[in-house]
Amino acid sequence: MARPTKQFPERGDARTRLLEAARDTIRRQGFAASSVEDFCREAGVTKGAFFHQFGSKEALGVAAADYWAETTTAFFAAAPYHAPKDPLERILAYLDFRAGIIEGEIAEFTCLVGTMAQEVYGSSPAIRDACAASIFGHAKTLVPDIQAAMEARGIADAWTAESLAQHFQAVLQGAFILAKAGNDPAYVKESIAHLRRYVELLFSIPNKGKRK
Amino acid sequence: MARPTKQFPERGDARTRLLEAARDTIRRQGFAASSVEDFCREAGVTKGAFFHQFGSKEALGVAAADYWAETTTAFFAAAPYHAPKDPLERILAYLDFRAGIIEGEIAEFTCLVGTMAQEVYGSSPAIRDACAASIFGHAKTLVPDIQAAMEARGIADAWTAESLAQHFQAVLQGAFILAKAGNDPAYVKESIAHLRRYVELLFSIPNKGKRK
Repeated sequence: MARPTKQFPERGDARTRLLEAARDTIRRQGFAASSVEDFCREAGVTKGAFFHQFGSKEALGVAAADYWAETTTAFFAAAPYHAPKDPLERILAYLDFRAGIIEGEIAEFTCLVGTMAQEVYGSSPAIRDACAASIFGHAKTLVPDIQAAMEARGIADAWTAESLAQHFQAVLQGAFILAKAGNDPAYVKESIAHLRRYVELLFSIPNKGKRK
Repeated sequence: MARPTKQFPERGDARTRLLEAARDTIRRQGFAASSVEDFCREAGVTKGAFFHQFGSKEALGVAAADYWAETTTAFFAAAPYHAPKDPLERILAYLDFRAGIIEGEIAEFTCLVGTMAQEVYGSSPAIRDACAASIFGHAKTLVPDIQAAMEARGIADAWTAESLAQHFQAVLQGAFILAKAGNDPAYVKESIAHLRRYVELLFSIPNKGKRK
């Protein structure tokens, strides 16, 4: 069942093949349910090569989260949502972009590090922290645009740009769970639509708008 | 390590003890990482008793999701957020209630069925469907209040009461993941605050308010 790497054929060394096998396998079936043998079979490498590269399943989990952070950072940095001149338009374009990439199998659009954090938060602080670095690191990339949009509209409310950026990630992570439970990607698009509407409403109100 | 049942001492039979042991163990460490031995040790019952009651680990997973649905349905039905006369106030009281029960250890306030759905959506349709029944069943309990609030304010927008109720669950599930990744329950309260603000804004706009 060896399978060539799908996204970076030029990086087909054993380490990268194992990282990509871990990414695909864990998204499909979770971290705990995946064995070192599963990763090796999917990557087409020996167990000797696995332990030479990573030393342990936990170390692979950390490396897979780091690799996820690295590849998704590059993916989002190159995405078209940064193009609009208005920062609010960039934020809305980000949400539209996130909705647009919800297609195909559930394992193909859901989040490796959200899945792993859910499973190992109590058992592996090392993997948990690597997942947190990826999730919160991605959230941070949205903060300058949110901050700029707040300043452009004179919004200084109880919420911060950072907390809104983190809320975006919460909505996405939770919508992935509904899609998994309900076996339907439409739940993700529905929740992103609600989130987009929230952003539109937040930024359409004047300074110190309606608050509890 | 046998432990008495915590919440329903009057129901301390082997089956209930196993269901509560599964609930507590899976919330702490996930479904795949939990063994039948773990459940038996936590419940203080023999493996013979386990297999007599459930037959398989997967059957226990389904029963645990059903038990979760049953106990949380009773818990939320008895909660005080149903008291306000105005349906919008009941919706906001629901969110305040959800924020108010975020305390203690992460395993004590996070969601059994969200965790299980995340892990087994691809490997166990039976558990996945039992998790879906719990998540979407709970969402359905909010629909009449949302519908009544929409009608009271003449709101007939692109969103439906059902989709907003499901979005509530997405926000909660995703906020649990951020709390696990960041090892801080504050992420849940922050996301619920954003969700509450969204509801306030949604229902403060006139009929056919600002939409994309």
